[in-house]
Amino acid sequence: MVQFVGVQTIVDLIAAKGPEQFLAGLVSYIEQDFKRWEAFEKSARLASHSRDGVIELMPTSDGELYAFKYVNGHPNNTRNGLLTVTAFGVLADVHTGYPLLLSEMTVATALRTAATSALAAKYLARKDSKIMALIGLGAQAEFQALAFKAVLGVRQLRVFDVDVAATRKFTANLADYGFTIIAANSVADAVRGADIVTTATAAKSRAAVITAEMIADGVHFNAIGGDCPGKTEIHRDALLRTRIFVEFPPQTRIEGEIQQLGADSPVTELWRVIVGAAPGRISSQDVTLFDSVGFAIEDYSTLRYLRDLMQSSGLDRTLDLVPHLEDPKDLFGLVANRGMPVGTDLRGKLALKRIA
Amino acid sequence: MVQFVGVQTIVDLIAAKGPEQFLAGLVSYIEQDFKRWEAFEKSARLASHSRDGVIELMPTSDGELYAFKYVNGHPNNTRNGLLTVTAFGVLADVHTGYPLLLSEMTVATALRTAATSALAAKYLARKDSKIMALIGLGAQAEFQALAFKAVLGVRQLRVFDVDVAATRKFTANLADYGFTIIAANSVADAVRGADIVTTATAAKSRAAVITAEMIADGVHFNAIGGDCPGKTEIHRDALLRTRIFVEFPPQTRIEGEIQQLGADSPVTELWRVIVGAAPGRISSQDVTLFDSVGFAIEDYSTLRYLRDLMQSSGLDRTLDLVPHLEDPKDLFGLVANRGMPVGTDLRGKLALKRIA
Repeated sequence: MVQFVGVQTIVDLIAAKGPEQFLAGLVSYIEQDFKRWEAFEKSARLASHSRDGVIELMPTSDGELYAFKYVNGHPNNTRNGLLTVTAFGVLADVHTGYPLLLSEMTVATALRTAATSALAAKYLARKDSKIMALIGLGAQAEFQALAFKAVLGVRQLRVFDVDVAATRKFTANLADYGFTIIAANSVADAVRGADIVTTATAAKSRAAVITAEMIADGVHFNAIGGDCPGKTEIHRDALLRTRIFVEFPPQTRIEGEIQQLGADSPVTELWRVIVGAAPGRISSQDVTLFDSVGFAIEDYSTLRYLRDLMQSSGLDRTLDLVPHLEDPKDLFGLVANRGMPVGTDLRGKLALKRIA
Repeated sequence: MVQFVGVQTIVDLIAAKGPEQFLAGLVSYIEQDFKRWEAFEKSARLASHSRDGVIELMPTSDGELYAFKYVNGHPNNTRNGLLTVTAFGVLADVHTGYPLLLSEMTVATALRTAATSALAAKYLARKDSKIMALIGLGAQAEFQALAFKAVLGVRQLRVFDVDVAATRKFTANLADYGFTIIAANSVADAVRGADIVTTATAAKSRAAVITAEMIADGVHFNAIGGDCPGKTEIHRDALLRTRIFVEFPPQTRIEGEIQQLGADSPVTELWRVIVGAAPGRISSQDVTLFDSVGFAIEDYSTLRYLRDLMQSSGLDRTLDLVPHLEDPKDLFGLVANRGMPVGTDLRGKLALKRIA
């Protein structure tokens, strides 16, 4: 049987641990897997484009476990009350090819994106960071705030969204999580005095949410929203003032903020910072930027984490996604042993002869 | 909610219609989709190879529906009582990117392989075909027999397998389906006098189950077992005596019997015969061969068929694989509204100020 983590189950798992502890645990799984980055098969994602959006399959494997995520991106879905992005994923055993776990990943992707951001900031932001500006208060925002609180102890948020209702939703959702939330009246206002700046806007264009004059020494930028071709948030001049860290350069150069820069613009892979093979933050004046686009290994880590949580939680929900056969050659036995078929009209009589 | 077809559900669906009617219906879905072959996006499959086997993702889309199949191939699995091949698949709405149906496809793949074979034979075998030789009585065998009965009315089978237990299993499973089954004592014996020859052996090598001297005028060969690099069933000299029909040449040249021939050996695409753009059988003496390897469009047709069957059957099983949100920006609301999180130790008090 294949374990199943549906929407209700992941909500229950998050509630059982508390969101911050859930995120802290997920950060440690992603960190473990980034430390063995070179063990992973890093395929391109397989994308199917249409007029309305894109459907992608993102696989990876470390030779023990195989994971893939199905994820769509349909910008106009919100007009019909649907999510722009939904996702689900599967973890499988490389040695048998059998699927082990199927999980919703709409919620899980928000969690892993936030966890990866916090992991990057752990290595790139100033150790004394206390204040985070959060620009864009959509579906990702609360997860980002909680991940930064869980990992870096950030409790002061300066937030801005062009949509007042989004700000209201954000503050209401986080009412019980111990933050001081300041609703700023502009991006520049929110960014002023912040140690960390997280941008997670939904603008579907070459936006310039952050401009060069907003950059103060020592700030770490966590750029979430620029994540597909044609969608960026940081003005090119601002980008050029930062030292840039990425997940997987071939993907980020197409999807991230750095699509605005040349194909050989200098970037550092985050995993190399984590294993100590490349420098992260050099000084307290250094301006760093994590150009987040999301990578398959993070989904792998998330599925691995969910599998372990399911095992320890006592929650149990399974699907009969793979048959169990006494005799592997007798697949038809599943049908035959079910009892007599209902459609009797076409059946006749057996006449078995043997040529011996 | 996403519809779910588990192993038990597909067994119930097959039983409700009767296996032959189920297969006949599936043949018509595949035929419909082969008739609009050019409407489909035909990607390469995405394969992850390991020492023990391979895990593949096979997507396709016609601009309305998107489908992919997860399928593994692990030859040593039977040593541990596991299936060599398991599969599952998803059908999704191209316009929203939302998954619609998740189905087991281990059983469904056997069904669609048999249905595609029968479809090919409908266009390629002699109309007066009455006797089928069936070489290799493994997991695929009963499905092949039933599909040929349903579509071509074949009721006489001459069967052979090196494993006597497989023959016993096959005849027992089909005891109530109105076949005359003759257990032959060699491949040559089984093939003698047959109008159609189906080969579905599991030999993992360059086998020569069928050799040139076994070929009689007018026979149609349905070659199932040669389906991955290094695995073939028909001797090269025998192949050269047939006119060869394939699903998707770029894939069949790698995986099918024709991997033994040159890269520009003549083949005809089955869909072109079905739409009348290429000749199928030319005369009653013609020797035809369908070099079956399995293609993503067949899985698409199968998932589409299963969705329609679920709708008409009254069977209903759904999964909460995608969240439903009142406000698409409020993903965190799923967690927040669940009630108060259990992990209370990290939560504190809200302090909301506004800079106005």
